[in-house]
Amino acid sequence: MITIADYLLTRLEQLGVKHMFGVPGELNLAFCDAIEDFKKIAWVGGCNELNSLYAADGYARAKHSLGVSLTIFGPGELSAMNGFAGAVSEDVPILHIVGVPSITQQKEKSIVDHTLGDGRYVFDAFSNAAQEITYLQAILSKKEEAAAKIDKILVDCISWSRPAYLALPTNLVTEKISSESLKFPLSRSQTQNDPAAEEFVADRITSLFAQAVAPQADAIVLVDLGAIRHNVLKEVYDLLKRTGFPVYATPMGKTAIDETYERYGGIYWGSALSSPEVVKAFAEAKLVLSIGSFQGDFNSGNFNNNIPTDRMIELHADRTKIQDDIFPGVGMKKLIPKLSARLEHLRHIATQIPIPKFDNFVPQGGSEKITHEWLWPRVGQFFKPNDVIVADTGTAQYAIVDVRLPKGSDLLSQMRWASIGWSIGAALGACLAVKESEPRRTVVFVGDGSLQMTVQELSSLIRTGVKPIIFVLNNSGYTTERLLHRESEQRKYPDIAQWDYSGLLRVLGDLDGTASRSYQARTKKELTELLDDEEFGNTKFIQLVEIFMDKLDAPWALENWPQRFVPTRALLKRRIA
Amino acid sequence: MITIADYLLTRLEQLGVKHMFGVPGELNLAFCDAIEDFKKIAWVGGCNELNSLYAADGYARAKHSLGVSLTIFGPGELSAMNGFAGAVSEDVPILHIVGVPSITQQKEKSIVDHTLGDGRYVFDAFSNAAQEITYLQAILSKKEEAAAKIDKILVDCISWSRPAYLALPTNLVTEKISSESLKFPLSRSQTQNDPAAEEFVADRITSLFAQAVAPQADAIVLVDLGAIRHNVLKEVYDLLKRTGFPVYATPMGKTAIDETYERYGGIYWGSALSSPEVVKAFAEAKLVLSIGSFQGDFNSGNFNNNIPTDRMIELHADRTKIQDDIFPGVGMKKLIPKLSARLEHLRHIATQIPIPKFDNFVPQGGSEKITHEWLWPRVGQFFKPNDVIVADTGTAQYAIVDVRLPKGSDLLSQMRWASIGWSIGAALGACLAVKESEPRRTVVFVGDGSLQMTVQELSSLIRTGVKPIIFVLNNSGYTTERLLHRESEQRKYPDIAQWDYSGLLRVLGDLDGTASRSYQARTKKELTELLDDEEFGNTKFIQLVEIFMDKLDAPWALENWPQRFVPTRALLKRRIA
Repeated sequence: MITIADYLLTRLEQLGVKHMFGVPGELNLAFCDAIEDFKKIAWVGGCNELNSLYAADGYARAKHSLGVSLTIFGPGELSAMNGFAGAVSEDVPILHIVGVPSITQQKEKSIVDHTLGDGRYVFDAFSNAAQEITYLQAILSKKEEAAAKIDKILVDCISWSRPAYLALPTNLVTEKISSESLKFPLSRSQTQNDPAAEEFVADRITSLFAQAVAPQADAIVLVDLGAIRHNVLKEVYDLLKRTGFPVYATPMGKTAIDETYERYGGIYWGSALSSPEVVKAFAEAKLVLSIGSFQGDFNSGNFNNNIPTDRMIELHADRTKIQDDIFPGVGMKKLIPKLSARLEHLRHIATQIPIPKFDNFVPQGGSEKITHEWLWPRVGQFFKPNDVIVADTGTAQYAIVDVRLPKGSDLLSQMRWASIGWSIGAALGACLAVKESEPRRTVVFVGDGSLQMTVQELSSLIRTGVKPIIFVLNNSGYTTERLLHRESEQRKYPDIAQWDYSGLLRVLGDLDGTASRSYQARTKKELTELLDDEEFGNTKFIQLVEIFMDKLDAPWALENWPQRFVPTRALLKRRIA
Repeated sequence: MITIADYLLTRLEQLGVKHMFGVPGELNLAFCDAIEDFKKIAWVGGCNELNSLYAADGYARAKHSLGVSLTIFGPGELSAMNGFAGAVSEDVPILHIVGVPSITQQKEKSIVDHTLGDGRYVFDAFSNAAQEITYLQAILSKKEEAAAKIDKILVDCISWSRPAYLALPTNLVTEKISSESLKFPLSRSQTQNDPAAEEFVADRITSLFAQAVAPQADAIVLVDLGAIRHNVLKEVYDLLKRTGFPVYATPMGKTAIDETYERYGGIYWGSALSSPEVVKAFAEAKLVLSIGSFQGDFNSGNFNNNIPTDRMIELHADRTKIQDDIFPGVGMKKLIPKLSARLEHLRHIATQIPIPKFDNFVPQGGSEKITHEWLWPRVGQFFKPNDVIVADTGTAQYAIVDVRLPKGSDLLSQMRWASIGWSIGAALGACLAVKESEPRRTVVFVGDGSLQMTVQELSSLIRTGVKPIIFVLNNSGYTTERLLHRESEQRKYPDIAQWDYSGLLRVLGDLDGTASRSYQARTKKELTELLDDEEFGNTKFIQLVEIFMDKLDAPWALENWPQRFVPTRALLKRRIA
């Protein structure tokens, strides 16, 4: 026999969870006791619930595995809801455990604190609200069902890579149940493809590839976020290595493929924003094999990813789409190895398809002012293999897409949900996730407006002893807004308060100044010296670098953010010319 | 003709709104332009949406009038949802305007950023989630209906004192509509009572009072938060002055009645927590006239407000309850004046009913350590008439209940929803609200754990030039949890990071140190000197005082927080003995 709390914690541990995030509150304290006694999972208390949810999200992204957050009913869970919705939007597998009132209180509809004070709405309002955001929800109410409900929601969460909401009433936490089923660890359920359908799909794809390589080979692979989330990176690499086809990534798929891989051509970000060579490659390709595609305006350069349907094959976790035909139930996990085997014989042709060069070129000359044009390729040279790079929404997100990142690095960025401030919480989770296995640097880029959203979580970075480098882009406010809505350039509302950013770490927890270093860079020279400083790069401290930039300076992609549905041909001409 | 934006802004201005709060984002920028051009309402940009919602809430509470916040669809509105739910829980009239995608984008179900990336859920997920929290919602979709929908939701919001959610699609902001209806300002709709029912109710109440004053008078009035929210304070004062009955307040009703009023007996907080004299008064009263009662565990000392139904008359905005009988549609706004007239003749008897003395007694002697027992009566002596006092959830909230507050003061505290960190945002709104009319001090009490939740909004206090005094109770974490769940006393999870609280204001915006002052108080002597310093009390600067307290020291009420349903008699004996 085992308590429900320990049952749940054991399941989490079996799934590799070593850190969990959240805020203690009256309705989860007994569960917090259990966590502290459990020992094998470290509790990381956050300054607030939103930041803790972001941390669980960053942890899951960095580990490609389950992240967990804990809040309470009402104020706690609602504070975290934006973070939870972001994980839903980007298929991040997190479990959000919510401590809720006891079953007796629920039945009585007591107007305890944290309720809306209204019989109709008392107890189900918040879980109903959460249900609008997520598919996966389990509300524990009887101890007899607890183990089964916990197991089911965890399997669904990791199998579909989808966030799940679990309500845990105070009275059930210490109830005892059988531990028998814990002998059987949970794993991702992998639906088998229907053999006949899979065979048909593989045949058809093979035949399209055969057409696309004759007389002259022109077929390419495009990898998106779904390949990461649905655990097919190994299969994709195998396909690429065995066939030799050129591969590109979308912005959200960036770093799914090693950006130094010899057959990697860079980022396809729609026809308006990609480099001219990449636009040309996509405009001319006879066939695009898209793996794990993720819709969204940022990811497609505002819906300009204009690949004609008749040249498109889309592999997804649960279906395949070939030109106009959808084949439900033929998922990529099992299909990709089949394709590797069937397309391998094209290798001698596929390897002849040219690929653009993707690298970082630092523009020389110009004034000493730090501009986006200069900053990003320069920072690209600073990165080391295996860095974890966290880019917040805003100018950093637009800019990082065009930086070639080193071998083994991971880019974490919330490109569809785009909630500014996410990076600080996410960095906490990411730092702790990578710390569990190997020493890797975490490098964060965050705008001043974004940092102000979630600044208190710098404190948790200090407290847990992790040592990220945090670049704060100080451009006096919301520059992305100034660019996306030109009217606001001359307005006051995008401006924010000036802070002493380099004083933050001291005040927020590094009281004696031994744990952190802070810097300011106003010129290219200052920043170059810092980036070239070996000690800085070795990250013995948590480090914050305030970079001063012009209010209206922006990365190329943001400056040139296109209208929707720009015809490829017109753009192709413009960019190439 | 007028744009929809200007229509809405004009309506807000007509309702007395002079400041509005929020965060600009891609989907509300055109509306932000309109606000900046409108001139008569000042835009107060917040560091994040939750804090801005809290600010709108604090503004509404301090002004007893409408507060307004602006966010965007998805990340913005969900970040603010906890704050919005708090306003719902405590009937604070705020309008939450959400900038949402254009009607075209909604129809197309485009997966623009900030969406969940899923056809089924794309556009209505967030407004559906909000609908679980609030009754009042208007989703603008056609310009022809805009004026009517705006007017209706505003009237409902102020009439019922309930938060409202208004979705404003980007494409409608600058659409023109007729300004004709703006000639007719909106006002609270006051439902008239059915004359026969009102007469019957008044008769019955009059007869119960007649019984309760013979042979010996023993009837009392209990005022709760509903009296503030539903705008009957004038009527209540008139009743009290004309009849002379003793009056008490609940914790949430505190400062509804001037605490220096000669017939005021203090706080009734249920039989376990109120002072022995107050418990006795309620135990012995033959009749209690309750005005605007608000259910909740905090407000009733954990459901120990044991007043027998047969001695109870409840006046509400929309109904009256006499003993076991409910009279829907007989609201207090019109009923109270009738009762004043009918009960006035009892004045000579009513004024003989004794009332306990409610005052602040500072315990003398003991160690130099600052304890809750000493702190609160001492701070009680520091308050001045008309102070606005903001107490965050946690020890401050438990303690402030027992402090006698000065004439004309307002206590703002989120006692039912109890979301820690609320006070910093709320203080911003409160400071700006009172600044609109008269110079009043705002004095904030916030625990260290609560401050860490929302600390960045100190920046907005500095930026707007308001000058609150902020007392930070540094007890190294979540002391309320340590007390409510004794098991956690020895645990690590209620501990939080130590910050340099007195360094915060400099770093968060007072870069040259001219706008703020920060202090630390470790002993009674240090704090006494500060409180006695005239310059400190005159608040020429924004001031923060860090008060060091023991981890496990707590206010009496928190130390003695009772079980539910403690029998009055037993407690009465114990407290009086």
